[in-house]
Amino acid sequence: MAFTYLTNIPLEQARADYLARLIELGLSAKAETIATVEANHRVTAKAVYARISAPHYNACAMDGIALDASKTFGANEVNPVILEEADFTWVNTGDPLPSGCDSVVMVEDVIREGDSVKLFAAATPWQHVRQIGEDVAAGDMIIPSYEELTPPALGALLAAGVLEVEVIQKPLVAFIPTGNEIVSPKKHPEPGEIIEFNSTIFCGMVEDWGCRSKVYPIVPDNQIAIEAAIRQASAECDLVLLNAGSSAGARDYAIEAIGKVGEVVLHGIAIKPGKPTILANMMKCEQVVPLIGLPGYPVSGILVMEEIIKEVISLMTKRVYPADKTVEATSSRRLNSGLKYLEFIRARVGNVAGKRVAVALNRGAGVVSSFVKADGIVKIPQDLEGYEAGEQVEVQLLKSLEEIDRTLVITGSHDPLIDEVIDLMKHRYPADRVASSHVGSLGGILAVKRGEAHLGGVHLLDEDSGEYNLGYMRKYFTEGGVVLLSCVKRTQGLIVEKGNPRGVKGIEDLPGLNYVNRQKGSGTRILIDYMCKKHGIDTTAIKGYTREEFTHTAVAAAVAMGTADVGLGIYAASRIYDLDFIPVGEEQYDLLFLESALELAPAQHFLDVLKSTDLTIRLKAMGGYEMNNPGAVRKWN
Amino acid sequence: MAFTYLTNIPLEQARADYLARLIELGLSAKAETIATVEANHRVTAKAVYARISAPHYNACAMDGIALDASKTFGANEVNPVILEEADFTWVNTGDPLPSGCDSVVMVEDVIREGDSVKLFAAATPWQHVRQIGEDVAAGDMIIPSYEELTPPALGALLAAGVLEVEVIQKPLVAFIPTGNEIVSPKKHPEPGEIIEFNSTIFCGMVEDWGCRSKVYPIVPDNQIAIEAAIRQASAECDLVLLNAGSSAGARDYAIEAIGKVGEVVLHGIAIKPGKPTILANMMKCEQVVPLIGLPGYPVSGILVMEEIIKEVISLMTKRVYPADKTVEATSSRRLNSGLKYLEFIRARVGNVAGKRVAVALNRGAGVVSSFVKADGIVKIPQDLEGYEAGEQVEVQLLKSLEEIDRTLVITGSHDPLIDEVIDLMKHRYPADRVASSHVGSLGGILAVKRGEAHLGGVHLLDEDSGEYNLGYMRKYFTEGGVVLLSCVKRTQGLIVEKGNPRGVKGIEDLPGLNYVNRQKGSGTRILIDYMCKKHGIDTTAIKGYTREEFTHTAVAAAVAMGTADVGLGIYAASRIYDLDFIPVGEEQYDLLFLESALELAPAQHFLDVLKSTDLTIRLKAMGGYEMNNPGAVRKWN
Repeated sequence: MAFTYLTNIPLEQARADYLARLIELGLSAKAETIATVEANHRVTAKAVYARISAPHYNACAMDGIALDASKTFGANEVNPVILEEADFTWVNTGDPLPSGCDSVVMVEDVIREGDSVKLFAAATPWQHVRQIGEDVAAGDMIIPSYEELTPPALGALLAAGVLEVEVIQKPLVAFIPTGNEIVSPKKHPEPGEIIEFNSTIFCGMVEDWGCRSKVYPIVPDNQIAIEAAIRQASAECDLVLLNAGSSAGARDYAIEAIGKVGEVVLHGIAIKPGKPTILANMMKCEQVVPLIGLPGYPVSGILVMEEIIKEVISLMTKRVYPADKTVEATSSRRLNSGLKYLEFIRARVGNVAGKRVAVALNRGAGVVSSFVKADGIVKIPQDLEGYEAGEQVEVQLLKSLEEIDRTLVITGSHDPLIDEVIDLMKHRYPADRVASSHVGSLGGILAVKRGEAHLGGVHLLDEDSGEYNLGYMRKYFTEGGVVLLSCVKRTQGLIVEKGNPRGVKGIEDLPGLNYVNRQKGSGTRILIDYMCKKHGIDTTAIKGYTREEFTHTAVAAAVAMGTADVGLGIYAASRIYDLDFIPVGEEQYDLLFLESALELAPAQHFLDVLKSTDLTIRLKAMGGYEMNNPGAVRKWN
Repeated sequence: MAFTYLTNIPLEQARADYLARLIELGLSAKAETIATVEANHRVTAKAVYARISAPHYNACAMDGIALDASKTFGANEVNPVILEEADFTWVNTGDPLPSGCDSVVMVEDVIREGDSVKLFAAATPWQHVRQIGEDVAAGDMIIPSYEELTPPALGALLAAGVLEVEVIQKPLVAFIPTGNEIVSPKKHPEPGEIIEFNSTIFCGMVEDWGCRSKVYPIVPDNQIAIEAAIRQASAECDLVLLNAGSSAGARDYAIEAIGKVGEVVLHGIAIKPGKPTILANMMKCEQVVPLIGLPGYPVSGILVMEEIIKEVISLMTKRVYPADKTVEATSSRRLNSGLKYLEFIRARVGNVAGKRVAVALNRGAGVVSSFVKADGIVKIPQDLEGYEAGEQVEVQLLKSLEEIDRTLVITGSHDPLIDEVIDLMKHRYPADRVASSHVGSLGGILAVKRGEAHLGGVHLLDEDSGEYNLGYMRKYFTEGGVVLLSCVKRTQGLIVEKGNPRGVKGIEDLPGLNYVNRQKGSGTRILIDYMCKKHGIDTTAIKGYTREEFTHTAVAAAVAMGTADVGLGIYAASRIYDLDFIPVGEEQYDLLFLESALELAPAQHFLDVLKSTDLTIRLKAMGGYEMNNPGAVRKWN
């Protein structure tokens, strides 16, 4: 295998070069004729003209009498006109206008006198008549090429006698998963088995863009097998996505395989994540098939799909996808970036007291859940080393600004009860939107203080007073502006393997064990630091004390997997993994609200749910909680 | 049949009363469990928790060596660390972290020395390791209830071992078309046959809202048959739409039929169009089925669906549909409205030179094509008599503001060549948006003058000079600000029945014939007025001279249907209907551009297409046109 090097071509250029090459090779859309009734949201392949007029006859538009208007001329309140039976016809809405008639008088305005009628007003010609072609005249262009058909447009087509319509065929996109370690989704994968979920993500994306998709069986890391898969897929489909092995490592066969069957336009784009991308094509008969080697990490692949492949697909679907919307926001932290790449950073965006703040999410290319949480993407240009905290950044929105602006932003200590409150809010107040991030108690205090969050959970022990939270309020909020609300008492404890094989009894046993810690600034970290100090334990002697997880569940997961012997966390987390739990104390978990946020409807709804029986029942089931006068104001100054 | 009266209940109250009654009767969503890979854009029925962590094992995040970081402590450029074979393991990305290791060093940073390796930097614990739960930790809530699943969310679920997911079932909506005069779409309907296209519109709408739909056979105007259809549909579906016969006329059976099988909540809403609406329900077992009698006119039905039924469906789908976006615009004309109803007026919205203008479209409740053209809806409150021309009105948008703001607005004389230019633009410049309305040449001049359009087609004969357009420029644009561009010469003529059975030779034959005219202010009307004057014809003696159509094709349609003997129009229109054409003169059709609009990209694209061979070919095929130095500036001052 020849060793290949990745190029580092700027995104704009990579996209332009690739599109130019595909256009040069004749990439275009195909058409098909389908029944109009089946064409909702399809795109017209050519202009559609009315075959017949709509209405196709002069139709009475009211129940009443049809007549020749000239026979009523001169009629008024004082001098009514009387029409004999031969001079009018009773009609219903939709009836054809009888011959010799040019107007309709509503039944409400007709006075019957035997077989005659009396009218107190003159009719004007063509009144209450839907004239031929009122809606569409035969021969008129109803809709031009390359327009998406909406339900009313379908109605107009049918009314105009267009029963079939030529639309753009939905391109069929092939997805070929590759890799020896890749397995189909399963409930109990073995270590080293990587669950293949990229096909679901990428096929979902191309379907959203108006394509159909076909997922091929997983291909092992073998160049010949990959070549064969590409040949089959390109014969059957209009565009081929190969995933992954697109880099230049020892087990990356995509570039050789693609090079063998097609033409590589480029390999390696100056973006992060997403660099190991292959943009290529192959010909089948006279037709070009775009062929893309996507990076294996889902986040990388999503970005490459959005930034490049969407435009390729636009050429094949003739759809113009809405332009990205961007918004200015204040970056909550410093965002470092290398000068080698254009970097994409997923971010949560919140509007707190009128200020839009972007909070960067986990940058890991494997962290697909960050796309579930993200409201937008901050792009750091290739020639920039990043942004300072507090600097204005441009965020490309993934959600509507309207949604973002009404979202309740929760930033603080992680506790599953917050998720349960959010879930219950969805039931009671379906229109509410809540976004929550876990940054620890101190992080929450700072977020609220800086106006980046409406509220946050806090459980911070004041070492001197032994009291929770109040001391920190006095320290951080000398100016006020916030309200501390009581929430729950919860039990913290040492989470250990089922059966407690190492016989852990308490904090004093930690030295010698493999510990998994929480991040600095979290209440749980402050608690363990305090307890170790109280027990006179040198924490540098505890193996793994510097290993930091961001949630209780992540700590429990580490213990469950055996990569740590013990960690401090809440009871609920230990239960999820069926682990043993050695209580070491009870703490006060409170909610810190920005005072101005309390007036917001979703904040009121949050408190409403917090005080509800539904939540009490859920927390009881989870265990380790005691409701502690939830929502009551805790005075601290 | 008992005669019933329609109530006139305000929209807000009607909606609130109906929703309250349905909620009281227990209307809610149903759940179903489906494969996660099939769940794109479905809505969760309950919170989804991770079954396993993602990643589910500590995974190497780089190709390189795995090791115990503590063995590298102290290594630097000057004092490298050498590790023997037993102290490290070669790994590929995705491999499980070998036991005893806590970090990975990238292959690029590893210097091989035989079987040993040399490192010039210390590793930090957990570097280049994707720790268990980095993405999601088992037990974490990944997504709460009632959230729409996106492709990345599906990826997160699969990664977390969630292979099936409980989602809201798509409600099945029944559509029952009724009416003796209703027929399935056909190419050659007879007069009096009304084409049933409402099912396609309304089913398309409910599918867009996340439902499935089922269309039942057309039911005749017969109360027993309608009752039977409702019973069957409600047994099989979750919501029933009955269309139409919802008013109180002699042939309107919906209210009796619905009253017999269910409970009528109200009949008659104070909206226009849309008043004859029935909001009802019936029970099957313990389950309530909403039952709606929709008005027959498509525009009325669409408005009732949007304003009321969408909210009913929201309760059944647990989807929160995006809030309506509104924008302020200047109304181009006076909009009259009665005090009895809240009135909905479809409008085109354009942004011309920074000013947003709303132009009301045809108000006819049967004009479904107006929804194809409409950018928004102006609501005139029940207690208002309307808006003055030039008044600011609030427009509820049907298209995105971004699209509206970049749309090229064409208002003026109707000529099919404009549609052909738009179609060709779609091919060359797919992202361009163009909106065109037909208001006649004088209407176009006024629209451009008032800043409501970027351009318009004009063909206005100056009776004194016999010259086209220039005189009108001098009269209307003393201040300049516009540019007149040459376009085509086209032939106007008398359109008569095939074979010219009445032997029409020219204008002099019009008296005694049944004429169909164009609207005042159109160039064609001015031409016929001028010609009649020249021939000394008294136009009041011409029957039908006051009957006004807005396009050439509508005039030809009237002749084709035999409701008129003759009309003046262009050759292309006569050809569509295979009619005879007696040329009476050639005229100059020009394009009047707002000077500032000429700089806009779509305006340049428009001119580009205007000068293209593609357009020349199309116009030649249509006949009656001669390209006349298209795009050349015609000086007029």
